Amino acid sequence: MASVPVDKDSADQKLQFAPFSSALEAGFWHQLTQKKLNDYRLDESPKNIKGYYYNGDPVGLPTRLTLEFSAFEADGPSPARCCPVTGTLYNTNTLEAFKTSDKKALLEQQATEIWDSIQSGDALKDPSLLCKFLLLTYADLKKYHFYYWFCFPALCFSEGIKILKEPATLDQVFSSKQTSALQAAYDSLCGETGTSAVPYFLIKYTGDTVQVAQLRDWDSFNTDLNKVTVGVYDPCTLPQHPGWPLRNLLFLLASKWGSQLDVVEVMCFRDRTLQGSRNIQHSIVFQVKLPIPEQSVNAACPKNVGWEKNPKGAMGPRMVNLSECMDPKRLAESSVDLNLKLMRWRLVPSLNLDKVTSTKCLLLGAGTLGCNVARTLMGWGVRHITFVDNSKISYSNPVRQPLYEFEDCLGGGKSKALAAVDRLGKIFPGVNAEGHVMSIPMPGHPVNFSEATMSQARQDVEHLEKLISEHDVVFLLMDTRESRWLPTVIAASNRKLVVNSALGFDTFVVMRHGLKKPKPCGPGDSSDPSSSSSLPAASLFSNIPGHRLGCYFCNDVVAPGDSTRDRTLDQQCTVSRPGLAMIAGALAVELMVSILQHTEGLCPRLSVTVICSSVTVICPSVTVVCSSVTVVCSSVTVVLSQCYCSPVPVLL
Amino acid sequence: MASVPVDKDSADQKLQFAPFSSALEAGFWHQLTQKKLNDYRLDESPKNIKGYYYNGDPVGLPTRLTLEFSAFEADGPSPARCCPVTGTLYNTNTLEAFKTSDKKALLEQQATEIWDSIQSGDALKDPSLLCKFLLLTYADLKKYHFYYWFCFPALCFSEGIKILKEPATLDQVFSSKQTSALQAAYDSLCGETGTSAVPYFLIKYTGDTVQVAQLRDWDSFNTDLNKVTVGVYDPCTLPQHPGWPLRNLLFLLASKWGSQLDVVEVMCFRDRTLQGSRNIQHSIVFQVKLPIPEQSVNAACPKNVGWEKNPKGAMGPRMVNLSECMDPKRLAESSVDLNLKLMRWRLVPSLNLDKVTSTKCLLLGAGTLGCNVARTLMGWGVRHITFVDNSKISYSNPVRQPLYEFEDCLGGGKSKALAAVDRLGKIFPGVNAEGHVMSIPMPGHPVNFSEATMSQARQDVEHLEKLISEHDVVFLLMDTRESRWLPTVIAASNRKLVVNSALGFDTFVVMRHGLKKPKPCGPGDSSDPSSSSSLPAASLFSNIPGHRLGCYFCNDVVAPGDSTRDRTLDQQCTVSRPGLAMIAGALAVELMVSILQHTEGLCPRLSVTVICSSVTVICPSVTVVCSSVTVVCSSVTVVLSQCYCSPVPVLL
Repeated sequence: MASVPVDKDSADQKLQFAPFSSALEAGFWHQLTQKKLNDYRLDESPKNIKGYYYNGDPVGLPTRLTLEFSAFEADGPSPARCCPVTGTLYNTNTLEAFKTSDKKALLEQQATEIWDSIQSGDALKDPSLLCKFLLLTYADLKKYHFYYWFCFPALCFSEGIKILKEPATLDQVFSSKQTSALQAAYDSLCGETGTSAVPYFLIKYTGDTVQVAQLRDWDSFNTDLNKVTVGVYDPCTLPQHPGWPLRNLLFLLASKWGSQLDVVEVMCFRDRTLQGSRNIQHSIVFQVKLPIPEQSVNAACPKNVGWEKNPKGAMGPRMVNLSECMDPKRLAESSVDLNLKLMRWRLVPSLNLDKVTSTKCLLLGAGTLGCNVARTLMGWGVRHITFVDNSKISYSNPVRQPLYEFEDCLGGGKSKALAAVDRLGKIFPGVNAEGHVMSIPMPGHPVNFSEATMSQARQDVEHLEKLISEHDVVFLLMDTRESRWLPTVIAASNRKLVVNSALGFDTFVVMRHGLKKPKPCGPGDSSDPSSSSSLPAASLFSNIPGHRLGCYFCNDVVAPGDSTRDRTLDQQCTVSRPGLAMIAGALAVELMVSILQHTEGLCPRLSVTVICSSVTVICPSVTVVCSSVTVVCSSVTVVLSQCYCSPVPVLL
Repeated sequence: MASVPVDKDSADQKLQFAPFSSALEAGFWHQLTQKKLNDYRLDESPKNIKGYYYNGDPVGLPTRLTLEFSAFEADGPSPARCCPVTGTLYNTNTLEAFKTSDKKALLEQQATEIWDSIQSGDALKDPSLLCKFLLLTYADLKKYHFYYWFCFPALCFSEGIKILKEPATLDQVFSSKQTSALQAAYDSLCGETGTSAVPYFLIKYTGDTVQVAQLRDWDSFNTDLNKVTVGVYDPCTLPQHPGWPLRNLLFLLASKWGSQLDVVEVMCFRDRTLQGSRNIQHSIVFQVKLPIPEQSVNAACPKNVGWEKNPKGAMGPRMVNLSECMDPKRLAESSVDLNLKLMRWRLVPSLNLDKVTSTKCLLLGAGTLGCNVARTLMGWGVRHITFVDNSKISYSNPVRQPLYEFEDCLGGGKSKALAAVDRLGKIFPGVNAEGHVMSIPMPGHPVNFSEATMSQARQDVEHLEKLISEHDVVFLLMDTRESRWLPTVIAASNRKLVVNSALGFDTFVVMRHGLKKPKPCGPGDSSDPSSSSSLPAASLFSNIPGHRLGCYFCNDVVAPGDSTRDRTLDQQCTVSRPGLAMIAGALAVELMVSILQHTEGLCPRLSVTVICSSVTVICPSVTVVCSSVTVVCSSVTVVLSQCYCSPVPVLL
C-alpha cells in the first residue's frame, strides 16, 4: 500500500505513522447547519465535539477519524466497538476569518494541553487525553459549501524512533490460544472501564496466559521494565505501520520512563469480523527504541505537527459542496428558512418564527392584492395559504398580479384561485396551498328566489364559515366593499385576526379589524377594560387596545349595497398606481407578523390590546412632484362601542 | 327568399320593405376601443359616425348597412360606389346605462329630425337626410365584449302602400339601350354631385332617351305628374321587395305631392358586376299608390319604427365577443394599456403615458429589488427593461425574488439576468427585455494585475458605459454599497436619471440622485440658480431643485471599500423583512414616474429643478407593536456643492 501517505518522521529503520484521514458524514454538516442557524448564530467560541475511530476496517481504507450527526453530543455514546475522540470545533463567521485563523497557534494550544496532561500524569489516568482533534470550519449556508480543516495534534521527538524488530502479524508471534486470551482480556478491560474501546493498554504474556491492564496500573503491572508491551487500539490497516494514535503514547512513555526502557514492544490491536466471528490475528507487533525527549519536565511544549493535508497532498483546507447531493426540494426548504432564521442572529433574537410560519392564512381575493400578499407570506415562510376567488385571469392581469402569466390567460383564462395555487407550488414546492373557486355572498346583491340559487348561496355561506374557522388569519383583499361584509362578520364571530386592505388610485388602507373584549373567562384575566380606555385618543400613535378598534364597516356610514352595478370601465378596473398593490400587500403581511409577535399575540382572550395599525400612505402623486408620504392613523377615529363585527352569531 | 325578414307594413298587395341588417366589421370595434380609451373616456354625448350601403351585393345577402374602421371619420370618403349614411353613436359608460336607455325617445328624436327635414324642404335639397341611423353601444373593454343595438328610423303611413304594378326586372321594362342610357345618366349624376352614389333621384324616359335628375329639380323635371318615376339606390337583393332606404323617400313624396300623384313608379336601382362589366338589368321597377299622410304640415312627428331585431328575431340588443378572434398577444397588449389609459379618464387626465411607457430602464441588480422594480415597471407599461446581474438563482431566492421559480434553481441555478428576461416574456410577450451577465467593477475590490483580469475589467467598464448611455433611467438595486459607485459616476456624466434603492432590516431608502446644473446653453434657459437655492432647507417637503441634490455617496462619509470581504452569513444575505423589497421596489418606480411627469421632466438641460424624493419609511417593526411610519427626507441634509457625481469624465 505504497500510495497511502505515511508521515516521514524517521529515516530507514525509523518508525512511520499513518496519519488520520478525516471522514465527515453529510449528517455532520446538516447538524452543523442547524446548530449555526439556531444556537451558535454569531458565536465563534470553541465548541466541544466528538469523533471516533474503529480498528476493524477492511484493508485498503485509510486511517479514518469519523464525525457524524452525533458529533455535537460530546458526551453521547459512540457506535459499538468504536473509540471516541474528543475534539474542538472552531466555526468562523466568515470565510475571511477561516482563512486568516492562526493555525499554528491553535495547534500549539492543543499540543500544549496534551503535553501538560503528560507532565501532570492526567494522561496516564485518562489516556484519551492523548488523542484529540481540532476542526476549523466555515459554513456558507447560502450555497451549502462547507470549508474545513482538521488537525490531529502529535508531539514530535527531535530524532526518529528506531525500529528494533520489524512489524509482524500477531499470528506470527502469538499462539491461537494466546490470541484468544488477549481478545478476551481486552474485552473484559472494556467492560471494566465501561467504554466501547480502550485506546491504550498494557499487555503481559507468558505461556498461554495473557494479561492486560490500564495505563494507570503501569507501576504494579510492569514489574520487569526489560519486557514492556503496550497495546494500542489501532485504526490503521497497513501491515508495516501503526496509525496516528500511537504517537502521543510513545511520547508519554519516553517522557515518563524513557531512560529506563531499552526496548518497548508495541501491539497495534486490530480487529476484524471474518466469516461471522471476530478476528485479531492480523494485528501487528513490533519493537522500538524510544529516544529520550530533550525537554525536561515543565519545559515548553515539544515540537508538534497535525494539520491534515488536502486531497492534493498539500497543506490546505478542504471544501465540500453539499448542495449537489441534497434533494433540491429539501434544499429549497432549508434555504427559505435560512433567510428567516438569520433575522434572529443579530436583529431580532426574540423573533418567534414558528408562530409566523405555522399561521394558516385565508386570502379572500386572488387579484392584485391577493397575489402580493401571498408572495410576502411566502417570503415570511408561511406554508399554509388558501385562496378564495371566483374570477378568471384576463389579459390585463399578469403585469399587475404577480402570480399569473400570459399563458394563464389563454382560452378564456384559468381560475385565479387554482392558478395561484399552481404558481405557489412552482415558487416553493413545500407550500401547502389550496384554492376555492367560489363567490362570496354579498348584501345588496339580491339572490333570485329559485331553489337552485338559494341553495347555492346557502352553500357558499357554509363553505365560507368552514374556511374561516379552519384558518388563523383572514385577509380581505377583494375588489368591492360589500364582499368584505360577510367575512368580516363571520371572522369576528370566530374571533379570527382580520387584516383588511383596499386600494384607491394613489391611496390605500391596510388595517386590522378590532374584536370586542370578551367577558373574563378565568382567573388569569385580571385586566381592567376601563384602564386602557383612558389612553389619550388624540395621539396618533397611542396604544389603542384591540377591543376599541372597529372593523372596515365601523369606519363608514355607507351601508353595504351593490357597488358593482352601473360601474364605468375605470370603476370596474380599480384604476390604481401600479406600485400601490405591492406596497399595500406587503404592509398587510408585515402588520400580521407584527401582531403575531406581540406578547399577547393571537391569544383569543387577550388579542384585544394590540394597537390598530391602519395606515394610509399617500404615495408620490403624479400631478404633484413632491412625493409626500402622509400618515393618517385612521382608526383613531373609530372607537365605537357597537359595530357589525361584534362576536354575535351570524344570521342571514 | 322567404326566410329573409320583411317588414309587414302592409297586407296583400301592400308594399313591404327589406329592413337594414347591421354589418359591423372588427375594425369598427377596434377603433371604438381606441376612441373610448383615448378620446371619449367618460364622455357619453352623441357622436357623429358614418356607415354605408352598396347596391351591388350578390343575391342572398341581406340588406346591409356596413360600419368599418373608417366609421369615426364622419366626413371621410366612402368606398367606391357605396352610399354613405350618417349616424349617431350613443356609447354608454355602463351596461346599466345601455340597458336602461330610452330607446323610444332616441328613435323619436331621429324620426323628428327626418320629419323636420321633409317639412322644411331640406330633405329635398339633401336627400341623404332621409336615411340615417342610430347606434347604441356599450363596450366592455375588460372582456372585449361589445353590446350594440342599431336603429334605422322610418316614418310610417297609417295605412299601407298599395302596389299598382308588381315588381318587374328592369330588362322586362327597358330595352338594353335604355338600360345603358340609364346607367350612363346615373353615373354622370354622381359625377355632377361629386358623390360615390346618389341615394335618390328622378327618372324620365321616352324612346331610347333616359334622363335623370336630383330630387331638388322635381318641379322643373317632373312636368307631367301622371308619369313620375323615382330611382333609389337600393341595397336590397330581393326580386319582389325594395330595401329600407325607399321608405322615407315615399313618405317625402306623399307629404309633398301625395294629393297630386295618382301613381308613382319606383325603380330600385341595383348594380352588379357580371363577367367584368357592370350590369343593372336585375334592378326592379314597380308602381305604387301613395296614401296621403294624416299629418298636416307642422304636426307632430308621424309614427315611426326602426330598432333592429336581434338574430333570434326578437327586439333586443346584440353582443359580439371579440376576444375570441383577436391574437392573444395583441389582446394582452391592449389589455395592459387599458388599465393605464383608464387613469386618464377621471383621475389624471394630464398623465403623459407615452413618456412613461417609452422610457428605457436599466436595472443594475436582478435580485429582490430588481425583480420588484421590473414588475412595477411592467405594471406601468414600460416596455424596454434591461437587467445587469452576475449571480445565479439560489434556492432561497424564489420566495423573495418574484421573477424566479424553484425550477430556475436546479443544476446550480440559472443566471439571474437571463432568467429575469425569460420571465418578463412569459408575463407579457410584448416586452423588450435584455439581460447582461456581468460584474460591475467596484472600487476597493482590487483587480489582480494579470493581463486577462485587467482586460476583463476594462471591458466591463466599457460595457457598463454603453448600457447606461443607451438607457434613460438607471436603477441602482445592487446588494453592496461600492457596486453603486461606478454607475453613479457614469450616469451623472451621461446626465441620466438615477433612482437608487437599498434595504436595511426594517428600513429602506429610495432616492433620486441629483445632477449639477449645467451651464446655460441657449436662450431658453433663463432660470436663475440662485433663486431656487434660497428655499428654506429646513422644511421637510420644500421644493429642492435637482441640482442641489447629492448622490448616494454624497450622503455618506464612508469611502467606497470592499464591504463583501469578511461578511457573516446574515450580512451576506441582506436580512430584511420580506415585505420591504416590494415596498421599496414599488416606490422606486413610482418615484421615477412622478419625475417623468414633471413639466420639466427629463429634459437634459432642465431636469435639475425636480425635488428630491428620498424617503425612508420605517416599517412596522417586529419588536415594537406600533407600526409607526416615519418619514425622513434625508436629502435635505445633502446640499453639497461638490460630489462624486459631478458630470466629469470618468477616469479609472
